[in-house]
Amino acid sequence: MTPAIRYEHIKTCKQSGARLGLVHTPHGVIETPTFMPVGTLATVKTMSPEELKQMDAQIILSNTYHLFLRPGHEIIREAGGLHKFMNWDRPILTDSGGFQVFSLAEMRKITEEGVNFRSHINGDKLFLSPEVAMNIQNALGSDIMMAFDECPPYPAEKEYIKRSLERTSRWAERCLEAHARPEDQGLFAIVQGGMHEDLRRQSAADLTSMDFPGYAIGGLSVGEPKHLMYEVLEHTVPLLPTNKPRYLMGVGSPDALLEGAIRGVDMFDCVLPTRIARNGTTMTSQGRVVVRNAQYARDFGPLDPNCDCYTCRNYSRAYLRHLIKADETFGLRLTTYHNLHFLLELMRGVRQAIREDRLLDFRDEFFDQYGMHNNDKGF
Amino acid sequence: MTPAIRYEHIKTCKQSGARLGLVHTPHGVIETPTFMPVGTLATVKTMSPEELKQMDAQIILSNTYHLFLRPGHEIIREAGGLHKFMNWDRPILTDSGGFQVFSLAEMRKITEEGVNFRSHINGDKLFLSPEVAMNIQNALGSDIMMAFDECPPYPAEKEYIKRSLERTSRWAERCLEAHARPEDQGLFAIVQGGMHEDLRRQSAADLTSMDFPGYAIGGLSVGEPKHLMYEVLEHTVPLLPTNKPRYLMGVGSPDALLEGAIRGVDMFDCVLPTRIARNGTTMTSQGRVVVRNAQYARDFGPLDPNCDCYTCRNYSRAYLRHLIKADETFGLRLTTYHNLHFLLELMRGVRQAIREDRLLDFRDEFFDQYGMHNNDKGF
Ligand SMILES: [Zn+2]
Ligand SMILES: [Zn+2]
Repeated sequence: MTPAIRYEHIKTCKQSGARLGLVHTPHGVIETPTFMPVGTLATVKTMSPEELKQMDAQIILSNTYHLFLRPGHEIIREAGGLHKFMNWDRPILTDSGGFQVFSLAEMRKITEEGVNFRSHINGDKLFLSPEVAMNIQNALGSDIMMAFDECPPYPAEKEYIKRSLERTSRWAERCLEAHARPEDQGLFAIVQGGMHEDLRRQSAADLTSMDFPGYAIGGLSVGEPKHLMYEVLEHTVPLLPTNKPRYLMGVGSPDALLEGAIRGVDMFDCVLPTRIARNGTTMTSQGRVVVRNAQYARDFGPLDPNCDCYTCRNYSRAYLRHLIKADETFGLRLTTYHNLHFLLELMRGVRQAIREDRLLDFRDEFFDQYGMHNNDKGF
Repeated sequence: MTPAIRYEHIKTCKQSGARLGLVHTPHGVIETPTFMPVGTLATVKTMSPEELKQMDAQIILSNTYHLFLRPGHEIIREAGGLHKFMNWDRPILTDSGGFQVFSLAEMRKITEEGVNFRSHINGDKLFLSPEVAMNIQNALGSDIMMAFDECPPYPAEKEYIKRSLERTSRWAERCLEAHARPEDQGLFAIVQGGMHEDLRRQSAADLTSMDFPGYAIGGLSVGEPKHLMYEVLEHTVPLLPTNKPRYLMGVGSPDALLEGAIRGVDMFDCVLPTRIARNGTTMTSQGRVVVRNAQYARDFGPLDPNCDCYTCRNYSRAYLRHLIKADETFGLRLTTYHNLHFLLELMRGVRQAIREDRLLDFRDEFFDQYGMHNNDKGF
């Protein structure tokens, strides 16, 4: 059987060690390192599929937990799968629902079998387990599925993190077993272990022995300081096979994308660019611009003078501010478009810098221009 | 001086008396009868200018009152006018703000000079008059401006309606006087007179003597029964010059568009298609479809099987329902797109039927298919 997902390594940056590659999927090829826009409810908020293609989004992420609740995975199965349902013919990655369920805190109960929880929408009693998560994702038909894992909070007791990663390993085996469509959907495992090098080693050893077609690094970007995240990446990435894609979950600030790529990560996702856009906050080549602020009321220049996206070619900061202040949807479309374009353009720059063996220089130049050294948010 | 707005009559439907024409404007030619999508705050809610062009919207309407409040007409003047501000290079019609101000009820005071009122947003004391309305619309730079009129409520005392239309005539003269850009903006007058034939005659006589480049029929679609609106049209339209465009304000239900065109109206506007779309209600060739209803949860067919719009070509009722239920913006985009396309397509059908001298037949066929005879809303 040809595996659904195959990683092709192109080259390694001599300056940084970052890697350039291709991920082959049933719906096409992804150039890595890549950023995946998040389309939680079978739509990347405010965007059309055509707009995502215009900005060359090569893969999007959708959320199993949310689609399980609304509209329900059986409806999407009947529709012919998520690609057809949402009119997106490029690759899709779905998460396992674990992260959302564990975030429910008081509304859930974890056992070895799975997680009982209540819907955040209507309080319905629901259950997720490795088997249920596989069944849902098989119904969705995503190109890349994620194993159902337990993601501990930060900080947490080391003993709890250890028990939790061991359960995640047992659940990963059950996921492999339950996965009904390995021929056209690739299942990635998620390495846990918190901030502890020995636990990361244990988790990676467990999971790599099962030979998944790709590996995610979970349990990061959960509130820890960024230097700690980078340290964990430095000791975790080398534990992963070089012939499989590596995915750092929940990361989308420009600084962390660059630092992640430098440490050998291939794939990233985050709601950051779309979420802040809806509040009128944008990322530009010259740093963060909160375009809803009064200072832009009579600024008739483009949002980012160095950007050639649809928004920056056609509209002024004054118009964007007006729309955002007036709660007009079109304003959210325009800021969302620009922010996603900005991160996708950044990743194109990262790939080009790897080709030219100068990703560390590229990072420093980007940080200087963005003003990242005076920026505690990283965006 | 070449007038900014010129009406070119093409032909009259032998069966119905409806007329086919062209309205020449500084930003291009409009085929009439036409429907104008409403872009209240310098955006047709949820739509991009490119999408409006795809569906062949030939002219849009924007609201003086709302732009006066946000972002303020001086900002739009500095931006180079409304066309440039919102990236729309086809014709724009702006209303005068009168209708909105008179709707404020308790928050406004009318004198011969103008109207003192309080902003519905922040309570600021503001003033609109013929001169102010002209100054604002000159700043906006719309192709077609509307005179500042008083629109009485329905029902109202005849004596009040008479005094009000006489004031509207005096205000129309002041508008003509104050209008600073007649060379590239055409000013239309608004015939009032309520449901009274003699008052409509008086108003039309006053205003046609001043030779405006176009005439609107105001004070209709304000709550009166439809048969009464049609009667008023029947005695008002013949009072208007045949060589000027005729615009029926605030009308956008399919039945009223057809009946209006049959009675010699050239231009219509209404928020109906966009407003109901945002609530998940759509107009289709087979009648009204409230796509948010549960019955469409597993309906994988297109919204309207006889429609070839972007929405109907690419998405199912089940997907639309899911998006609308989940408050996803993209759902509002898709229903808005379809509803506007539907009305613009209806107007294309009306123009073709006039060419073929069969608009009455066209109306009957449309009503049959839509189920209009069992439809008390008209959409
Ligand atoms: Zn841009
Ligand atoms: Zn349609």
